[in-house]
Amino acid sequence: MHENATLRRSLPGGVWSIVAPHRSRRPQPLADERTEVHSGCDFCPGHEGSTEPEVAAVRVPGSEPNAPGWQVRVVPNKYPALELRTPTPAGVTPYRQTAARGCHEVIIETPHHDRGLAAFGVEELELVLSVYRQRLQALKARRGVRAVAVFRNEGAAAGASQKHAHSQVLALPLVPRRLAQEVLASCRHLQRRGSCVTCEMIQHECDRGTRLVKENRHFAALASFAPRFPYETWILPKSHAHDFAECEGPELHSLAAVVKDVLASLEATLGRFPFNFVLQTAPVRVSSLAERAFHWRLEIIPRLTTASGFEVGTGLFIVSVTPEDAAAALRSALDAGSPSPRSTGR
Amino acid sequence: MHENATLRRSLPGGVWSIVAPHRSRRPQPLADERTEVHSGCDFCPGHEGSTEPEVAAVRVPGSEPNAPGWQVRVVPNKYPALELRTPTPAGVTPYRQTAARGCHEVIIETPHHDRGLAAFGVEELELVLSVYRQRLQALKARRGVRAVAVFRNEGAAAGASQKHAHSQVLALPLVPRRLAQEVLASCRHLQRRGSCVTCEMIQHECDRGTRLVKENRHFAALASFAPRFPYETWILPKSHAHDFAECEGPELHSLAAVVKDVLASLEATLGRFPFNFVLQTAPVRVSSLAERAFHWRLEIIPRLTTASGFEVGTGLFIVSVTPEDAAAALRSALDAGSPSPRSTGR
Repeated sequence: MHENATLRRSLPGGVWSIVAPHRSRRPQPLADERTEVHSGCDFCPGHEGSTEPEVAAVRVPGSEPNAPGWQVRVVPNKYPALELRTPTPAGVTPYRQTAARGCHEVIIETPHHDRGLAAFGVEELELVLSVYRQRLQALKARRGVRAVAVFRNEGAAAGASQKHAHSQVLALPLVPRRLAQEVLASCRHLQRRGSCVTCEMIQHECDRGTRLVKENRHFAALASFAPRFPYETWILPKSHAHDFAECEGPELHSLAAVVKDVLASLEATLGRFPFNFVLQTAPVRVSSLAERAFHWRLEIIPRLTTASGFEVGTGLFIVSVTPEDAAAALRSALDAGSPSPRSTGR
Repeated sequence: MHENATLRRSLPGGVWSIVAPHRSRRPQPLADERTEVHSGCDFCPGHEGSTEPEVAAVRVPGSEPNAPGWQVRVVPNKYPALELRTPTPAGVTPYRQTAARGCHEVIIETPHHDRGLAAFGVEELELVLSVYRQRLQALKARRGVRAVAVFRNEGAAAGASQKHAHSQVLALPLVPRRLAQEVLASCRHLQRRGSCVTCEMIQHECDRGTRLVKENRHFAALASFAPRFPYETWILPKSHAHDFAECEGPELHSLAAVVKDVLASLEATLGRFPFNFVLQTAPVRVSSLAERAFHWRLEIIPRLTTASGFEVGTGLFIVSVTPEDAAAALRSALDAGSPSPRSTGR
């Protein structure tokens, strides 16, 4: 039995951390990706017994659970940051501390060990995104879940400890402050101006074009106006939508096509690059005001630079590539690569 | 003439970033510290002409400015994130954007190229801290400065782009949100309870001892209760003080002694480690309520792990070393090293 994880609130600022000591037993982060050995990979086909039993999978008809034959496989994280059954810790005056109660799942995105996400086809990306959607729906329905974080780390510099392509889903018992502040600011804007501030922003960016990377019928990809990292790119639905869990059908395909284009243009510009995916979607059971005010997005964040003491200390970021330059470079890469009209959906 | 830096506010969350395109021309971050060549270092004695002219220095009597003979030297950053004279950018509806107006200085901490801070003696550390104090006082007095960030990066994983030991000082035209939230929460606590929440926290930690790393007459070093990084250690004055600029005399020596002990115990526990210093001190010209409520601290943050998409996306952190275990390890290292009673001041 491992030591229980706790959710702890800092003083005086009130920032929460998850202290999960059993996670120190997980495999060491990648020091050098080239030394990764396929035969030691728990996420590869034939090694299904090395993970926790799967909770969902996309499989070829007739294949058995926890055996080969899957295209995407979802398993509980072996070293979870949050768990459903964990006792409430004793109070620790003057601090606040609660049980780190929730779920932590891994989405294994492909049977192929060596595949970076930029090598995925549009249909493969669509499959992964449909599993994001399915897990988001499933975990939102669980008792006590206030927000679901879906994210992805590729490369050691992006925090990956496994090379095999995967995403992670965390069901949280609280709404992270960054998300809560966005919801609050969006609601205030709606009350003052009667519109979604993100819809206004997308309209402005599509009209102006300087930070627009790619646009199709349903989605716009933008270089973030106030980025935290160089080449930070946001993909947003052009029609208002607060919850990624409602993205389906032709929209999901359209999203996969834009993701493909953004990854291709980033790789053409930067070479193979470490990056994160961050899905910013509405917290669970928000008010109808918040539904009209908050607009979901997928952030693609290259990790070419390391946060310094300034960023860690202040929460401000210094970035030396303007989003206007980044967008221009990515648009050029797309023009040069001339992706097929079919796959970009416009 | 370089492109001007701008301060930009994100939508919808309202987080500020400094976009400073000319900084992309600075030397590339350290890929491998062992390849650093002393002869190419602008911060070494004899290369004073390679930096901007010094704004302050601690020198041997009779030595000339911008020539060898210094122990600590302060120069404007050659690739500043903020500058005093920078034009106000045009408005960019629907966003907010202002000029990145301020100062960015470098404190070169020693003439010795190869010296990590853990190798500094207590008197050398005291000298560096006295220069922090002097620059903080000088920059706080400038017009338009709302907060001063003092920080330090050692090692590529901590964001350092120069090996030669140095700190940085940024005078900012705004109060970073993290600091503003701490001041606000501290003021609220004072109004409700009549006391400084950080004073209460220090008292609790010194009484309880489980997270206490080191204590002397003036200071306590604590493993942070809700850390963002493993072994994150905070050094705080035991008597209430809102502004590091007022720390002087025996107190400053006492602080240097604790810093020495914390660095020594971290190095004994972790080996040579990348880390940041972050000085959290009150914003400029705060109310008398905030002076009584906010308590300054020096954060020492080892950078052994890389923030993943979860941390980047949510602002929450997952840490796999409990602060109780970290403090116990650091105390053991201090006991084993048995630092001289004189240098620890207790």
